[in-house]
Amino acid sequence: MKSSWFTALVRTSDVFELLRDGRPRTRAQLAEATGLARSTIAARVEVLMRLGLVAPYGDARSTGGRPPSLFALNPAARVVAGIDIGATHAVAVLADLSGAILGELREDLDIAQGPEVVLGWATATVERLLDGAGRPHRDLAAIGIGLPGPVEHSSGRPINPPIMPGWDRHDVPATVQRTFAVPVLIDNDVNIMALGEQQTHLPDVDDLVFIKVATGIGAGIITGGRLQRGAQGTAGDLGHVRVSSGTGVPCRCGNEGCLEAVAAGPALAARLTGAGVPARSGQDVVDLVRSGELAAIQQVRQAGRDLGEVVATMVNLINPSVVVIGGRLADAGEHLIAGIREVVYQRSLPLATEHLRIVASVAGAQAGVLGAATMAIGHVLSPEAIEVAASQIS
Amino acid sequence: MKSSWFTALVRTSDVFELLRDGRPRTRAQLAEATGLARSTIAARVEVLMRLGLVAPYGDARSTGGRPPSLFALNPAARVVAGIDIGATHAVAVLADLSGAILGELREDLDIAQGPEVVLGWATATVERLLDGAGRPHRDLAAIGIGLPGPVEHSSGRPINPPIMPGWDRHDVPATVQRTFAVPVLIDNDVNIMALGEQQTHLPDVDDLVFIKVATGIGAGIITGGRLQRGAQGTAGDLGHVRVSSGTGVPCRCGNEGCLEAVAAGPALAARLTGAGVPARSGQDVVDLVRSGELAAIQQVRQAGRDLGEVVATMVNLINPSVVVIGGRLADAGEHLIAGIREVVYQRSLPLATEHLRIVASVAGAQAGVLGAATMAIGHVLSPEAIEVAASQIS
Repeated sequence: MKSSWFTALVRTSDVFELLRDGRPRTRAQLAEATGLARSTIAARVEVLMRLGLVAPYGDARSTGGRPPSLFALNPAARVVAGIDIGATHAVAVLADLSGAILGELREDLDIAQGPEVVLGWATATVERLLDGAGRPHRDLAAIGIGLPGPVEHSSGRPINPPIMPGWDRHDVPATVQRTFAVPVLIDNDVNIMALGEQQTHLPDVDDLVFIKVATGIGAGIITGGRLQRGAQGTAGDLGHVRVSSGTGVPCRCGNEGCLEAVAAGPALAARLTGAGVPARSGQDVVDLVRSGELAAIQQVRQAGRDLGEVVATMVNLINPSVVVIGGRLADAGEHLIAGIREVVYQRSLPLATEHLRIVASVAGAQAGVLGAATMAIGHVLSPEAIEVAASQIS
Repeated sequence: MKSSWFTALVRTSDVFELLRDGRPRTRAQLAEATGLARSTIAARVEVLMRLGLVAPYGDARSTGGRPPSLFALNPAARVVAGIDIGATHAVAVLADLSGAILGELREDLDIAQGPEVVLGWATATVERLLDGAGRPHRDLAAIGIGLPGPVEHSSGRPINPPIMPGWDRHDVPATVQRTFAVPVLIDNDVNIMALGEQQTHLPDVDDLVFIKVATGIGAGIITGGRLQRGAQGTAGDLGHVRVSSGTGVPCRCGNEGCLEAVAAGPALAARLTGAGVPARSGQDVVDLVRSGELAAIQQVRQAGRDLGEVVATMVNLINPSVVVIGGRLADAGEHLIAGIREVVYQRSLPLATEHLRIVASVAGAQAGVLGAATMAIGHVLSPEAIEVAASQIS
């Protein structure tokens, strides 16, 4: 891209967007690159410094009474919290605006204790993380939270979440904001896992499906570089797509034959138990696979084929370049993914699978919490959020 | 949105984006709204006038030797051609940059005649449209073309198109550009139908699936307001998703049980013929339905249920707010859509269907060609295209 005067006309070339790359620039360089008047540049840099997003760079402070001459993004000035709340455990991180992790805490936590208890833990944990990092409350710029159920992202309210008694339509941001008066972003767990996996291991991939296989089955879909939530925020719900091996099998949703009813952890554990190999949970199934138990390996392989039937459909409909398999069942190793690949390469169109990769999650158990932090950082650095913050200080 | 100086910092507020709304503005207003220096504004307006995208407004020309003082988007100055090429017929329109249709021509045309013949018709038709509207070649800013097969949008090449012998990997833009040295955008027919339906009848809908049911079955997917083509441009291929009633039915793709093998026009015609009601094509099936033939109505209703099985999956995975049914089979009236609704409302998740509308295409046979023109206009007015055009004249 050339940097002529014309570039400034047609690109989103405002001051902050320029500084987001981390390179320091002078006011004159910013004026030249944007075409903005020098006086305008000076006023805007002042606002960005007051927001803590931009800081004088290098030895600029040491030149006595002169105003600083170089400015750059200041990722260490503000922090965000990312929180991933699962059915029975939770994890939280503190990160700066570059995504560097400043602290992490995990705890066993039952989501069924309801929003007051669980969100009370969350805010107390953010306070502990801030204390541990020696950062005052005012450094916190935003909080991102993932929850294990459907969420209306725009309002931050869970909608009819099946495993979250007491949470239906609870105003999660308002509860958290009683302690921290910052933006609070909420999404479901698999959407933040998709964001976390992309951010940390697939930053150049624009078309990505992340599938979580655990007690439930769900997907986070990134296309054209953006997380796709759909009209009501329910995009990616593949757990209740019907699969051929599910005929006659009832599902907790009220239908029959759903993928989740045959291929999620509880279904595998129940079938193994019925076959004389006792297993209470998906984790037991994973442990049995790792110990070489043939019946467990066969069950996981078949779960892979059932998943593959729906993944084949997703590949035809969405045409991702990478399908990432995460969640507890992914810990069963290659057996699950082998079953998925078997069906996808048989059922999907050659053009759609020619460059397709089907891989296990690398971020693993950290995907969700890293994605929650990524979601919070994305909000803090968004033009909309900067505009709101600036209007509050000006 | 407030128009303070801060807005200019954080919004995509360049001169052309401001003028795209059609309201005339003075240089001073443009400078104030963008924060750009007056001299910068003057130079940029000059370039936009030379590109024909912006023109002096109102009585500004009549003030003698003074330079014009008001400027506005000039949608009538340039035109685009939109061309929708089907298996056996083609249609082309000439439109100005506001989308107003200046001329339209249709012809029976066999795509199997190959790219030289078919694209020769296309360029000759654009010349006739330009002549008919009294516009010189140089007014043409871009051409958008839809083709009935998979297309690599970035290169404009069809990839293994099943019903287009001789077209595989043909450089369609280069062939067209032998006659018209303008940008040529290519996409598959159902993607441009989705664009055309949205542009003309659903401009406020950001999450939309357009399903074409004809000789083949395919979908155009718009989520978050953008057409989603996927990593290889094959997104929306629902014709080869397996459906339960298809067990054992071979498909031309080499698999069995594909939706297209049981619910597209040829499958319905064959089944009706086998049942003693002769039909050669999907059009015959539509005619039989309209004449009240019960066997045909039953077949179309069942095709709707088969479609509904895949649409239910799409609703779970993509969560659109509107599903539009188009293509020749949609002319069979409510029977097809009734079958789709029957299964979708049974199979999809309540939250995803609560506000879902499943409707027949309103744009109908014009959806494709209007979408092709929309695609061309979108390109002409894009920042990237303006930058390229400006660099060529400066």
